[in-house]
Amino acid sequence: MPELNSPLAVVGTVAIDAVKTPFGARDRVFGGSASYFSYAASFFTPVSLIAVVGQDFPEEYRKILKEHPIDLSHLEVINGKTFSWKGEYGTDLNTAHTLDTQLNVLLDFKPKLMFKTLPEYIFLANVDPLIQADVLDQLEKPKLKFVACDTMNFWIANKRKEVLEVLARVDAVVLNDGEARQLTGEPNLIRAGQKIKELGPGYVIIKKGEHGVLLFYESHFCALPAYPLEEVYDPTGAGDTFAGGLMGHLASTGDLSFENMKKAIATASILASFTVEDFGLEALRRIQRSDIDQRLALFRKISSF
Amino acid sequence: MPELNSPLAVVGTVAIDAVKTPFGARDRVFGGSASYFSYAASFFTPVSLIAVVGQDFPEEYRKILKEHPIDLSHLEVINGKTFSWKGEYGTDLNTAHTLDTQLNVLLDFKPKLMFKTLPEYIFLANVDPLIQADVLDQLEKPKLKFVACDTMNFWIANKRKEVLEVLARVDAVVLNDGEARQLTGEPNLIRAGQKIKELGPGYVIIKKGEHGVLLFYESHFCALPAYPLEEVYDPTGAGDTFAGGLMGHLASTGDLSFENMKKAIATASILASFTVEDFGLEALRRIQRSDIDQRLALFRKISSF
Repeated sequence: MPELNSPLAVVGTVAIDAVKTPFGARDRVFGGSASYFSYAASFFTPVSLIAVVGQDFPEEYRKILKEHPIDLSHLEVINGKTFSWKGEYGTDLNTAHTLDTQLNVLLDFKPKLMFKTLPEYIFLANVDPLIQADVLDQLEKPKLKFVACDTMNFWIANKRKEVLEVLARVDAVVLNDGEARQLTGEPNLIRAGQKIKELGPGYVIIKKGEHGVLLFYESHFCALPAYPLEEVYDPTGAGDTFAGGLMGHLASTGDLSFENMKKAIATASILASFTVEDFGLEALRRIQRSDIDQRLALFRKISSF
Repeated sequence: MPELNSPLAVVGTVAIDAVKTPFGARDRVFGGSASYFSYAASFFTPVSLIAVVGQDFPEEYRKILKEHPIDLSHLEVINGKTFSWKGEYGTDLNTAHTLDTQLNVLLDFKPKLMFKTLPEYIFLANVDPLIQADVLDQLEKPKLKFVACDTMNFWIANKRKEVLEVLARVDAVVLNDGEARQLTGEPNLIRAGQKIKELGPGYVIIKKGEHGVLLFYESHFCALPAYPLEEVYDPTGAGDTFAGGLMGHLASTGDLSFENMKKAIATASILASFTVEDFGLEALRRIQRSDIDQRLALFRKISSF
């Protein structure tokens, strides 16, 4: 398979999930932070997926990724089973309760990057901060334009030092309200956002699920509501999809101004609004770029005064 | 005192509160739904305050109301003590815990309306729905342009039938997310808003505190974030201030289009953002109309993309 010339790369997980929501349960759902991210980002730009799977990784899932311009040269296959996550949501749909995590091949994940053309936009999706740092070590060149990262409550609690070291090296961090509060010990999200900026990332993006998103940058600020949905079917992957939309928009426009960053978080919100309307990547697989643009135009209309 | 020619009237409570927040405690704070409402609305238009107080009602509080064009002809003074409420907020500041309620003169509140010029905009602030209905009976004329109401968890739980009867008679209802869920049994706020529309009010406005506000009208929808605040000192009165800003804007512009309603909820959010920055009416007393306009312009900037 020839390598795509991708300006954007993501390191994260590719997973086989089992998900239960008030609306139904699915046993084998194609998931993982890097899967959602790359499928979303690739509506806008080719993207390289850096991840590891086991020998059990289904060919049908690989085919799903190939529906979009997603470069799989760095999707490593090693001995063992693919990472799997099992989770459940209550009626509020805001918090995932993890029932089981099988790291499997993730335990041996050591990305070896051999890009012919180095990506200039990097997203460090939710994996061990040591892996995030390792990828940065391999790609950090003067040429790098924009690096963003995600993290999760587990790493903040158990590898805080390593999380902080990654934060000091990135241009942006994308995290949810609970993680922002956990990281700073600050219940007020406006103050939490300011404090996270001081940890290193110029841009701080706090996702609040159904309540929208906050963006902090120097003395600038932006708050957007969420796109209104009557049916949230499965929130799994919403955050990774958001990040994919964000980075896809930035990499395809090449514009890192604050004004364009506002458009990027709006686009990101729209992508996430599709993902939660079905299990796994199903809703994203059904849409075209024009569906995104249409929903984005409506979003602008309903959130302006 | 000559009656002001007020296009807008509010019926509600005038109270002496005791409030404790993580930032401090105050024993005698001038409060009540009609006080906050009328002080906020009167930045935009004269407003008639329909309420009852006891003989202990301090002259200094009356003077505060007179700082603005608030008509007090219908502020009745009767034998007994003024309504008082004592409440406390935890660190999340979203939920008030009522420690004590002394209805006092509210138990005998039977508004007798004798307007020379009838108001065309009416707000039924949070009081017993039977009093709200009584005021509507007295004012409901073909001339009435716009009636909105508020309510609270206590009335929804204990006088549900009476609340529903009021809802069937108003043009708009303003309530918070918890009340919207309680009223409809619907956890999803978008669906809750749709369901409340079916109860009668054309316009449904759901306040989400720090997460902003949702507006429903026919097939139209609007979502706005909250104005970002690093310091929320005391949330008491935020909802009543919001309603005052909303109705004040509508009554002063006379424009009931959906586009102007969006401006009204933005204005309402800005008024509320001032109130929570201090105890009672203190923050509102410090500002001018120009401060509101300035914050509103910034709000538009930070919430558009």
